[in-house]
Amino acid sequence: MSGLNVYLSGEIHTDWREQIEQGAKAAGLDIVFTAPVTVHENSDDCGAVILGEEERTFWRDHKGAKINAIRTRTLIGKADIVVVRFGDKYKQWNAAFDAGIAYALGKSLIVLHDLSLTHPLKEVDGAALAVAETAGQVVEILAYVLTGDLKR
Amino acid sequence: MSGLNVYLSGEIHTDWREQIEQGAKAAGLDIVFTAPVTVHENSDDCGAVILGEEERTFWRDHKGAKINAIRTRTLIGKADIVVVRFGDKYKQWNAAFDAGIAYALGKSLIVLHDLSLTHPLKEVDGAALAVAETAGQVVEILAYVLTGDLKR
Amino acid sequence: MSGLNVYLSGEIHTDWREQIEQGAKAAGLDIVFTAPVTVHENSDDCGAVILGEEERTFWRDHKGAKINAIRTRTLIGKADIVVVRFGDKYKQWNAAFDAGIAYALGKSLIVLHDLSLTHPLKEVDGAALAVAETAGQVVEILAYVLTGDLKR
Amino acid sequence: MSGLNVYLSGEIHTDWREQIEQGAKAAGLDIVFTAPVTVHENSDDCGAVILGEEERTFWRDHKGAKINAIRTRTLIGKADIVVVRFGDKYKQWNAAFDAGIAYALGKSLIVLHDLSLTHPLKEVDGAALAVAETAGQVVEILAYVLTGDLKR
Amino acid sequence: MSGLNVYLSGEIHTDWREQIEQGAKAAGLDIVFTAPVTVHENSDDCGAVILGEEERTFWRDHKGAKINAIRTRTLIGKADIVVVRFGDKYKQWNAAFDAGIAYALGKSLIVLHDLSLTHPLKEVDGAALAVAETAGQVVEILAYVLTGDLKR
Amino acid sequence: MSGLNVYLSGEIHTDWREQIEQGAKAAGLDIVFTAPVTVHENSDDCGAVILGEEERTFWRDHKGAKINAIRTRTLIGKADIVVVRFGDKYKQWNAAFDAGIAYALGKSLIVLHDLSLTHPLKEVDGAALAVAETAGQVVEILAYVLTGDLKR
Amino acid sequence: MSGLNVYLSGEIHTDWREQIEQGAKAAGLDIVFTAPVTVHENSDDCGAVILGEEERTFWRDHKGAKINAIRTRTLIGKADIVVVRFGDKYKQWNAAFDAGIAYALGKSLIVLHDLSLTHPLKEVDGAALAVAETAGQVVEILAYVLTGDLKR
Amino acid sequence: MSGLNVYLSGEIHTDWREQIEQGAKAAGLDIVFTAPVTVHENSDDCGAVILGEEERTFWRDHKGAKINAIRTRTLIGKADIVVVRFGDKYKQWNAAFDAGIAYALGKSLIVLHDLSLTHPLKEVDGAALAVAETAGQVVEILAYVLTGDLKR
Repeated sequence: MSGLNVYLSGEIHTDWREQIEQGAKAAGLDIVFTAPVTVHENSDDCGAVILGEEERTFWRDHKGAKINAIRTRTLIGKADIVVVRFGDKYKQWNAAFDAGIAYALGKSLIVLHDLSLTHPLKEVDGAALAVAETAGQVVEILAYVLTGDLKR
Repeated sequence: MSGLNVYLSGEIHTDWREQIEQGAKAAGLDIVFTAPVTVHENSDDCGAVILGEEERTFWRDHKGAKINAIRTRTLIGKADIVVVRFGDKYKQWNAAFDAGIAYALGKSLIVLHDLSLTHPLKEVDGAALAVAETAGQVVEILAYVLTGDLKR
Repeated sequence: MSGLNVYLSGEIHTDWREQIEQGAKAAGLDIVFTAPVTVHENSDDCGAVILGEEERTFWRDHKGAKINAIRTRTLIGKADIVVVRFGDKYKQWNAAFDAGIAYALGKSLIVLHDLSLTHPLKEVDGAALAVAETAGQVVEILAYVLTGDLKR
Repeated sequence: MSGLNVYLSGEIHTDWREQIEQGAKAAGLDIVFTAPVTVHENSDDCGAVILGEEERTFWRDHKGAKINAIRTRTLIGKADIVVVRFGDKYKQWNAAFDAGIAYALGKSLIVLHDLSLTHPLKEVDGAALAVAETAGQVVEILAYVLTGDLKR
Repeated sequence: MSGLNVYLSGEIHTDWREQIEQGAKAAGLDIVFTAPVTVHENSDDCGAVILGEEERTFWRDHKGAKINAIRTRTLIGKADIVVVRFGDKYKQWNAAFDAGIAYALGKSLIVLHDLSLTHPLKEVDGAALAVAETAGQVVEILAYVLTGDLKR
Repeated sequence: MSGLNVYLSGEIHTDWREQIEQGAKAAGLDIVFTAPVTVHENSDDCGAVILGEEERTFWRDHKGAKINAIRTRTLIGKADIVVVRFGDKYKQWNAAFDAGIAYALGKSLIVLHDLSLTHPLKEVDGAALAVAETAGQVVEILAYVLTGDLKR
Repeated sequence: MSGLNVYLSGEIHTDWREQIEQGAKAAGLDIVFTAPVTVHENSDDCGAVILGEEERTFWRDHKGAKINAIRTRTLIGKADIVVVRFGDKYKQWNAAFDAGIAYALGKSLIVLHDLSLTHPLKEVDGAALAVAETAGQVVEILAYVLTGDLKR
Repeated sequence: MSGLNVYLSGEIHTDWREQIEQGAKAAGLDIVFTAPVTVHENSDDCGAVILGEEERTFWRDHKGAKINAIRTRTLIGKADIVVVRFGDKYKQWNAAFDAGIAYALGKSLIVLHDLSLTHPLKEVDGAALAVAETAGQVVEILAYVLTGDLKR
């Protein structure tokens, strides 16, 4: 198997994406990783900065969310696998929303979260093809999927 | 327009579903409302009770979540409109996950939440055709959609 | 053939819908006709009246347009045939937008307009299965499609 | 994110396409832009010139519109993003028709028009992920979507 | 199994439809049969009679063919099974065209023709779930599919 | 939730279908059950009996399998839930084949088999929303999905 | 616009494919042309030669037709445009069958035939985006679609 | 025709994949072959090794099966042709399950098995475009499909 396209959705305040990307690079895996815009302030402000400020925060957020959706929908649509990371802070409803879209589009879903979040994430986990607790496990899954080799 | 099928997803600890259903009934609207199983303990225990207990809570939750998915996927698939309610408690990732599925399937999405939740819900709101703050507004939307009448 | 579902999109300032519906009724045709909300002020105001006024007209229109979309997308999705009427006034971009959606969803498209509008409507006409100049012709098409009888 | 395919639909009498393409080039963005045939007389005459003249202008237009559709449907189908420009002249129903097709196919829709056209375009705007007033804003959206950088 | 929707496409100059419908009725089968307009002159003339005569026969045929397509596409879309009959006269390209549409839409295809037509119909037969030589065989297939009973 | 359509695929030599249907009836569940033809000899012979004997058993089987497919594809397409039963005898590849089709069509899949078959069925189980060991469990799942009640 | 994939279906006894391919090459058009196997005896014999002879010609043809379908379905699926040529000899039902498949898959359809075949081909023509009489016209359409230039 | 993507599903205990790949290579065919992980112990253990051991073999198998599904679903989705091999040992339900998925996704299906397995595989064979008995025949089919040449 020669090459995967993997979208990394969810938490933007820890370095889990870098861990996965570096792990994959270290393992020599032929994977294109994509992600939403992870610079928090840009993601929040893009609508207002580009299309003009709004008095109501609802519309300010609305314009930003939709511009971000241009990127995220396009990338989820091109992905073979969508990895969704849930951390222990914030609401992260956008992560669960992305997971729902990915699932409905027939993408292979991998969910990454601590065991402590199992109960509230059971519906998302139930739709996933793998539930990992560490970025390292995600790398090992991707390595196995691509190469068939298993590091025992 | 004669009849709508509306799925009510999300929060199960307040009476927002009853408010919408009674409001629609009072207005004489021809709507079939459906919902997930809203008896919390049944929803949590169905997997273990029917298919057997599990030692690990992960698998206990897993079996339950999937049985619930038989109901929710079937009903979302049949719905014209999916209303998703977010309250101020709990993680509610399953609500956002349902919203993602509904959106990807092309269902008309109505989101119901307090103004205070606007920022974390901006991605879900951005995909919705209406964002309401009260159950009464949802009823008025459904009434208008069905009849074209507008209570001014 | 027993029964058709026909959505009547476009112009709301003349009585073309009534002409078609009465013609079909007079001919005893088993057809369910649906339409957008045709009370102009309700269609314009629904967002602001139900979900609250907006200072900027852009967002006022936006909220209304999306609530109307709940109705129009649902009805176009259920229709076998979409008739789109273009009059000689107003921009009517929503009519052409509906036509594009209907075409992409594989609905049978009938366009109704005066010969004088042929040139600017050539792309829409090119996607249609019939281009009529009068409401009476639309009735005759529907009668023929349903019954196979041809009034010579 | 590495590369986008953007279809530029609508108005052909101003240089908005050139502005967007040059802006994207100046910003070093990896974007393939496509468009309908924008030489007006070729677009009008292609059917008659290639397949033979027609006495009735209806069929003359019809043949041309369909040949143009071979190009536009193919390109919209391949696009990640469809930008639709509405100017202040002409009926431009083909632009709204393209927007409807793009929306129904799940393409990310960006609409470009003056604020003065807001009301008649509210249905199209309501389906869009961004509504811009200038070609420069479209370039900034595309730059942000591709790179995540925001020019403040 | 309770009820089938069967579209009968193809030859209109023999009574094969009546044979199948009467056989199904005699066997008490719960089947809704549909068909194109089988009055040849109406099928040929509908475009010109309803929408006006044309000087060129190409456009006369074109308008009629498209109005007939409103009926046939709608009915094929609703059918569970499409039976296509090829006789020994005429070109019958519309029958093969219907078969292609039905196959691509995932309909169960039954082809009905004499053994002598096997070679030129091999591609259509190759896509069919049954190739029958007599109307009686089609009735027996439908009876078996509905009831599971087999008349030995 | 008001009514389910459940297709019962697989083993035809034991009475598991009757157990499920009687259990559902006893529980007063509003379910339409469908199934392939379960009279083994009819299922094997239908092609040869209706369309004529074949010298080669390959073609004899081929004709029969395709006629049976008219029924099974139609019913799987209409089902909300597909239950697939694997017994301890025979190859039962058609059951696994049906499961693959149902899964790819997005149907909710319930698999029913003894624990001893877990290893060879792990891929099918992995795609299922429930894996039951007894017909009684299937009835309880269907009851819970329909009513939300849980028999503890 | 940079490159098209064009499938050339239909008649295999004249050199119309060569005319189109040479015309496109002479015009410097970036087009990949594909086609069914056009060596008649190979197309007829492939099933029997590879998978073994059959006593009944029905099965001999059947095996060949299905192997050919592996090629034709794959190529039609990859094509942007499907050109279907009808000559004045043979039944050519496979050409009309291909046209139906291509149409249902949303491919742009160009039909090529003499004016004398207009009446029996009216249903196929009615679904096409262009109806040409000469291979040269097809080349000019492809050139215009790709480049926008019109040879007057 | 320039290049095919062929997924080789099924039996992993004989060298049929190598035979096909070497045959294709010897014939100079431009084909990318893909396959599931064929190292049996890795395929069985991947879930437990990467995501942790399980006490119950059901969940051990479950985790492994789903990780394998990430690979198999991705590759089947990218394939033009899916070849499914059934040997005379083991249950091989995963092979039949893959065949069902491939068929429902509209992939061209080639089945490879001994004549002795015809009866239990008749439903899978009935959905296939070719049923081969030897790896050499599969190579010849692929060669013919790609080149049109027939080795007589």
